[in-house]
Amino acid sequence: MTYCVGVSTKDGLVFCSDSRTNAGADMLSSYSKMHIITPAEDRVFVILASGNLATTQSIIQRINQEMEETDKPSLNNCKRMVDAARYIGQICREEHETTKEAAATSGIDTSVTFIFGGQIRGEPTALYMVYSAGNFITDSDETPYLQIGESKYGKPILDRILSRETSLEDAARCTIVSMDSTIKSNATVGPPIEVLVYQQDSFDISHYIKMEEDDEYLRKIKQAWNEALNSAFSKLPLFHWEKRATTTSNLHAITEIFHDQ
Amino acid sequence: MTYCVGVSTKDGLVFCSDSRTNAGADMLSSYSKMHIITPAEDRVFVILASGNLATTQSIIQRINQEMEETDKPSLNNCKRMVDAARYIGQICREEHETTKEAAATSGIDTSVTFIFGGQIRGEPTALYMVYSAGNFITDSDETPYLQIGESKYGKPILDRILSRETSLEDAARCTIVSMDSTIKSNATVGPPIEVLVYQQDSFDISHYIKMEEDDEYLRKIKQAWNEALNSAFSKLPLFHWEKRATTTSNLHAITEIFHDQ
Repeated sequence: MTYCVGVSTKDGLVFCSDSRTNAGADMLSSYSKMHIITPAEDRVFVILASGNLATTQSIIQRINQEMEETDKPSLNNCKRMVDAARYIGQICREEHETTKEAAATSGIDTSVTFIFGGQIRGEPTALYMVYSAGNFITDSDETPYLQIGESKYGKPILDRILSRETSLEDAARCTIVSMDSTIKSNATVGPPIEVLVYQQDSFDISHYIKMEEDDEYLRKIKQAWNEALNSAFSKLPLFHWEKRATTTSNLHAITEIFHDQ
Repeated sequence: MTYCVGVSTKDGLVFCSDSRTNAGADMLSSYSKMHIITPAEDRVFVILASGNLATTQSIIQRINQEMEETDKPSLNNCKRMVDAARYIGQICREEHETTKEAAATSGIDTSVTFIFGGQIRGEPTALYMVYSAGNFITDSDETPYLQIGESKYGKPILDRILSRETSLEDAARCTIVSMDSTIKSNATVGPPIEVLVYQQDSFDISHYIKMEEDDEYLRKIKQAWNEALNSAFSKLPLFHWEKRATTTSNLHAITEIFHDQ
């Protein structure tokens, strides 16, 4: 299984991916699912991959190869982000077609689903979810994120926090919390966690972190989040029957929060 | 679909259930899934039901009927909670057996899964998940809750907040937040939301609320929770590259929180 999420805000893009690959619960290994492609100074592309690992690897290999063959359409010479998405979609469809029938008899699913985003100079950033059939969707103002893989555990926090106005770093922290919730509940999603924060028009990919299970920043963010959630509960409205009984202790709690700060 | 959750703390039990029943996405209706049974002063039982509605109704009907037939084993005369769970399990198995084969040809699943909890005087409270086969499991210190139905969206908040030490009312608010996250993401889970807070040894079921979609308390708790989560983000540790840039504005944010309180 996999969990990856991409976010598109007014300031740019955030990408977050886990690294666990599994063929059954007893065959786990680690592969990066974040592929950062910077063929020239005027373009940045990121692919987050879920689904069949062999298909993914052959797609990535072909994307890289075709960038070197200057006469072919590639990520190196496409003019707009939507052309790039169409190109990625076409490669997904072709690579999936190659193995689909042969694998069907053995019950193996060779399909993939990608989150694909980035920027070409002169255009705003863009974010797509590309399917094996080659078709794709983009995000929306109502849902400024796209998820692939095990998406349910991590969805509520995205819904409650993310909007186009969220700062890039808050959006990145939100994807980390979302990823942490998913890792806790699904054994086939696991670290290292990779996060890339891309500031629109920067064409800079240095705001990238890769966190192992015992990473100091990951540990701090988990602890801070658990503490914040627990203290948030003291601010929720009381049930009608507990009003008198707990008002005093609740005031105490609030006073303590004051004190801690 | 359904979402129900039961929590077992040192102080007692909390039950929370949605009320949406569906046969396909175009056939939605409302049925209470919380069945509170108080046959005598020394016992309180609660059943939260998921799965086939016809099987559920025939089980509940039979449980009620057998309490009137004084010579038969029933919830009225069982001595311990585990006997009551075994009794419920047996009825589940028998009622499921009746329809299983007949329904199989039409592709209908007539199975049910129940959360069953309560107290018999002289014993502590107990909480079980009962399957159609009649077998059952209970909660644990590590996982002091049981979920049935669409459990993924609402699980992370339970994991982060609940322990045996959580107060009953905080546990109840946690199940409401968990339910709200689920309703937001799955159209086949819906209000009214029912919540019962049972204080150990009280044999009192008056701490019960039923909230329609526009319920004032539900609206307040959703709003307070969204605000608390958003303010919690301002307390999360910064990425290494944003340290200098945002420390001042973050201090401003903290000062504002102080001010608001």
